[in-house]
This record gives sequence, C-alpha cells and structure tokens, in this order.
Amino acid sequence: MTRVRSTVPETHQGIVSPDERLRVTYLLACAPGEDPAAKARDIAFEQTVELPPDCVDEDLAQAVVGRVEDVEVRPDGRWRATLSYDPELVGGEVAQLFNLLFGNISLKSGILVGDVTWPERLLRQFPGPRFGIDGVRAVCGTAERRPLLCAALKPVGLSAAALAAICHQFALGGVDLVKDDHSLADQSTAPFAERVARCQDAVAQANAATGGTTVYVPNFPHGAANATAAVALARAEGRRALLVSPLLVGFDTVRWLAETSGLALLAHPALAGAFLGRDHGIAPEVLLGQLFRLIGADAVIYPNAGGRFTLTEESCEAINAALRSPLGPLRPSFPVPAGGIDAARVPHWIERYGPDTIFLIGGSLYAQGDIARATRRVVDALVAYAD
Amino acid sequence: MTRVRSTVPETHQGIVSPDERLRVTYLLACAPGEDPAAKARDIAFEQTVELPPDCVDEDLAQAVVGRVEDVEVRPDGRWRATLSYDPELVGGEVAQLFNLLFGNISLKSGILVGDVTWPERLLRQFPGPRFGIDGVRAVCGTAERRPLLCAALKPVGLSAAALAAICHQFALGGVDLVKDDHSLADQSTAPFAERVARCQDAVAQANAATGGTTVYVPNFPHGAANATAAVALARAEGRRALLVSPLLVGFDTVRWLAETSGLALLAHPALAGAFLGRDHGIAPEVLLGQLFRLIGADAVIYPNAGGRFTLTEESCEAINAALRSPLGPLRPSFPVPAGGIDAARVPHWIERYGPDTIFLIGGSLYAQGDIARATRRVVDALVAYAD
Repeated sequence: MTRVRSTVPETHQGIVSPDERLRVTYLLACAPGEDPAAKARDIAFEQTVELPPDCVDEDLAQAVVGRVEDVEVRPDGRWRATLSYDPELVGGEVAQLFNLLFGNISLKSGILVGDVTWPERLLRQFPGPRFGIDGVRAVCGTAERRPLLCAALKPVGLSAAALAAICHQFALGGVDLVKDDHSLADQSTAPFAERVARCQDAVAQANAATGGTTVYVPNFPHGAANATAAVALARAEGRRALLVSPLLVGFDTVRWLAETSGLALLAHPALAGAFLGRDHGIAPEVLLGQLFRLIGADAVIYPNAGGRFTLTEESCEAINAALRSPLGPLRPSFPVPAGGIDAARVPHWIERYGPDTIFLIGGSLYAQGDIARATRRVVDALVAYAD
Repeated sequence: MTRVRSTVPETHQGIVSPDERLRVTYLLACAPGEDPAAKARDIAFEQTVELPPDCVDEDLAQAVVGRVEDVEVRPDGRWRATLSYDPELVGGEVAQLFNLLFGNISLKSGILVGDVTWPERLLRQFPGPRFGIDGVRAVCGTAERRPLLCAALKPVGLSAAALAAICHQFALGGVDLVKDDHSLADQSTAPFAERVARCQDAVAQANAATGGTTVYVPNFPHGAANATAAVALARAEGRRALLVSPLLVGFDTVRWLAETSGLALLAHPALAGAFLGRDHGIAPEVLLGQLFRLIGADAVIYPNAGGRFTLTEESCEAINAALRSPLGPLRPSFPVPAGGIDAARVPHWIERYGPDTIFLIGGSLYAQGDIARATRRVVDALVAYAD
C-alpha cells in the first residue's frame, strides 16, 4: 500500500482556524441502508484527494481532506452534513471553487449543496459585483431608491433594425434597462456588431427625445479569449452593461468581465435549472445567489414564483436575501425576478420584494399593443413606490 | 396585441429543407393532466422566440419557432417529442448551441434532451476534435491499435516536487498518459507553472531512461481571456495535451483551445452530473458524447459503470458510440472510462469496450504499493490486446 506522503507547507497544516475554513452544508438523501456518515466521509475524500482513505497519510489527510463537522437528520428524512475545507484548495480560481463544491459528486446521487459559509480571506480572492445595487442605479441614472424595470428585447429571428425599433419603443416608455434576449447571439439575422450599434443608437435617440436614461444591455455571446473584441464593441459609445449567462459562457468568463470590462453585469440563469433538483444539485440561493454574486454579477435574473418556471416563493426570497445580504467585502447584487411576471401583477411583487429589485418583464409588455405605453405604465408604478 | 413582424431574410424563410434542420428528441415526463403536445409546443416557443404564440406573426413563427415534428408515447410512460430548429439559430456559437438545446427549459421540469440529429452545415461550424483517436495515438507515440492507459496524478495538497515524483513512477511504468487530477488548479501548494514544469521534466527523464513515450497532461484551470499565458506554458517544451473540464471552464473555452492551442484535449466531466437526471437534463451520450466531441474534446472521461458513480453500462456504451461513430466531418474521440476501474478488472473492460478506449485508472494503481510496477502490469495487458 503506497501512502501518499504530505509535503504540504506548514502554513497549511492545521493552522487554518475553524472559522477560517470554507463550510459547506450538504443535504443527503440516503437510499435504504445507506449510511449518512459514510456518505459524508466519502464526499470529504471525493472532493479533495480523490483517493481511498488507505492511500493518504495522516498529515496530508489532516491538511487537505474535507472535515466532516456534523451529520444530523432533518425532519424531512434527509440528513444535513456539514463539511469544512481549507480555502487554500480553491487557489483563487473560480472553476476550482465550483469543482470543490460539487464537481465529482455531481456524478453521484442524492447530494444537494444546501448552504455555504465563506471565510473572509476566500471572499477577498473574488471580485464580486463591480457595481452592485447602488452602482447599477447610478448606471441607470436613477437617484431614488425604487425598483427598476428591465425589458427583454426579442425575438431572435428579427433583423437588427427591427430589434432596434422595439428598443426605441421601450426607451420611449422610460424603461430603466432593455436587455437582449439571451438567445440573441451572433446569428446572421441580427449580427452582434450591427445589433449592438443599432440598438444603442435607438435608445440614445429616445433618451434624447424624452430626457430619459434607458440603458441598453447587449447579450455577450462568447466565452473565451477571442471575446476581447466583443467587449470593446460592447463598451463603445457609452454602453454600460452586459447580459451574460454564466453556465453558457463559463464562470471564469464572468469573473473576467467583472474585473476588466467596466460594464455592469446582468446574469441570466440559462442551463442553471439542471442544478436545481430537489435532492441533487445546488440550492437556488447558493447557485443563483451566493455563487453568481461571488463571480461578479451585479444583478441576477431568476425565474420568479408563479410564472412559467418552477421555483417556489420561498426559494425566490432566499435568492433575494443571498444577493443583498452582507457578504464580506462584496457589494450586494440586484435580484431580477422574471419569467412570466405580468405587468398587472407588478404592484404585488413590489410589495413583496421591495425597492432593491429589478423587475424583468417580457412577453406581457409585448402583448399590450403599444409597447411604449405599456412600459410607461409599469415605470410609473415603480416610481410611485420610491422611498 | 402587438404581433412582432418577421424581417427574416429570405434565405431563412422555409428554404431550409427538413433534413437540414437540427432535430432534437426530448423525452417528456408529464404530470397527471399535463398535455404532452402542449408541452412540446411550449418548448418550441420557449427555446426560440420566448414569447407567447399570440405575439409572433405567422412568417416569423414559420421561420424561427421550433417545429414539433412528432409526439408519441413510449413504453415507459414518458413521451418522445421530436422538435426541429433552423440551425441558423445557433449562429456558430457554442454557448448559443447549449442554450438552444436546454437553456430556458432547464428551469422547467420533466424534460430530457434524449437525442440530437445534426445537419452537416451546423457540424461544419464547430471544430470538433483536433486530434481525434488516431491523433491522440500519434501524440502518445503508439503505432498499434490498442487501448491506452491514463493515470491520474493526485492528490491535491502535495507539492509540485512530490507530484513530479509520482509522475516519474507512472512514466517508468510505461503509462501512455498521466493527467493532473482535475482538482489541481493553481493552489499555492503546487502552483500551475511550477507543477507543469516539474512534472514534464520528470516524465521526460523517465522516458529517456526507458525509451518510453509517456505524455503528461496538465489541468487547465482557467476559463477566460487571461488564459493565454497558461496555454503558452502548457505548450512549452514539447507538452502535447491538456485536461479541461468543460462545465468548469466553459464550453467556448474548450472550443477555443481546440481551435488554437495545438494540444490534444482530454475532457473531464466535473459538474456534468447535474445534467444527468433520469427525467430532466441531457442524456449522458448527448452531453458527454456528442456535445463534448462537438466542442473539441479529443478524449472524454466518464464515470464507468460498476465504479463509484451512477452511470449504467448501457449509458457507457451509448457514450462510446457517440464519441466514435461518424459525425459529419468531425474526427472520432476516445472514450475514457474512469472512476473506480480496478486494475485487476481491466481485461474485462478491454473485452467489453475494445481497442479504441483509454482506461483511466486512479486509486487502484496507488493502492498496490509500487506504482511503476502496478502500472507496467496494466500496460502489458493492453499491449497484449493490440490488433
């Protein structure tokens, strides 16, 4: 039996104090006969050394293997296992952070990342929101503390000119933000460069006419090193914000955009639903709340309860809290409930979610005939709510 | 009611012939009373225009909305819905391809991407494997058609020097590839640059001593534009291959590495398990087979049946077939079964999976005491199998 010997520098041998460790609470759904303590121990090894306990010597195990801090049964029959990890395992890399939390164990079953407690020194390694809630309000030229309205520019298949005409309508209606549908990538019907230029112009013209401050938010369709040109384009001519889908373009791309682009980032949850299983995956408030904020989203779109998607109102509230609550040095992010919010129901949701919210309203503004007027009606409701 | 008018160029109005469309088969798990045909129609709108049918005029709907080609019940009670999309919707972007297949509907429930049929013109927009099965054999200096052996370098927490010493043992044992554990990112215990240099040296020394041709495969820990330096480092001094986790670093990062790095790409399935639900997600052979190959993986690691993860043997065979079968102009990729393959069981799996396979053996080589000798024993079995 080869025991892999520790060569971990002294600074990592047990001197990370308990409260400086990364604590992850997993909810375990155990099959009949499955031992929750063994399952927790298995996670501790799988997510770190990925070797059987016999192959790891004691010093190394002590320094590197996750520690099972606590395992207890919950009223719903699942088990709550709290593990802690040395934050040094993350190495300052966004990709490795996701890997440590759920990489290999995603391929097992009945494991949900339910909560994470972050040591301050780990939080300092990530950019977090560059703008945050106050910064996004400033970008939108909105001094007062009120909910913001975001409209969705669609559908894919329209020409850049046709999309720009719709943008113009939304801006005339005084919308705070108008974002590309996240399906608008670089299709030949409305190529990225042409679309961004035309929509920006349309919004600028409307703003000039009304004295408004609508911000156009193009969708960032790339994920890799050749994206620099797209960023330059998105930044040109006073553009201020960008839509990104972290699961589509990569977590580290979002981190990079937050650190370098100078643009406010609105994150879209495309593909994220795969992680939102009841018994296996990552809890919505951890994935769309804590993690999206950590990698730099200034605002996070999520499917609101009661719409055409599946989150509960409790989960939505938990996402809101995770985005807004104090988290080390990180700025708070705007929650952006979306997905079937009816314009007529906005007052209800304002009462529910409060002023630090961006409402993303899509189809229901299109369905009312006069886009500019429908938009204005909602904006008036939001302005009336201002503190 | 505003009906969004079509401004789709004529080339996209219905002249895409049926067999040139992107066909996606979804398996639908319907709740009691849920209408499978309505669910299929909802997918067609959700994944394209993201607007209610009333808001989209007929020309645009015809050109852009997904078409429900067929809905039929299966023996297991689920419904099989075949939809087709204009491949122009993908716009040549990897991120948008994933979005079109499963972006928004990931946030619904009971929808599994079961199969995809690719139009040739869409396949031509993606790089696919740069090396493919023959190319990887050439990189490994293996002329004969036999299974290859890949070892995993671990655990995280060891110093670069300690990891290099293990690398040396594997190379002395004649392993074809030795890959970084995907948890080896850029931690201070073994920083990327130092680790890559030391491990490469150790393998080169062993190769010089034995006349062997072991290839060291560093893990690529980044996902974004500042990754160029890491690629340069990984390419230096005759390095030939790279480990990437598409879900961690981003799909488009893999595409970019395939197109530009000149390195053979070994893809790791970290986080991918979130997509592998029975009733909701993406079928393993589509995600780890077709899609990972499409974005440029020359070899794809997956959790083998009978190991410590949850895939069935049927799914493993389906992944193998998806990686190796003809797919337009794309080269075939190596399947890399892993995750608890016992060295003693290798002959069984050779018989089962055949010569176009890379076996990734981790813990069980460490557990046998003399790493070089344990490795040599498996390599001998693989060589004996050569055609």
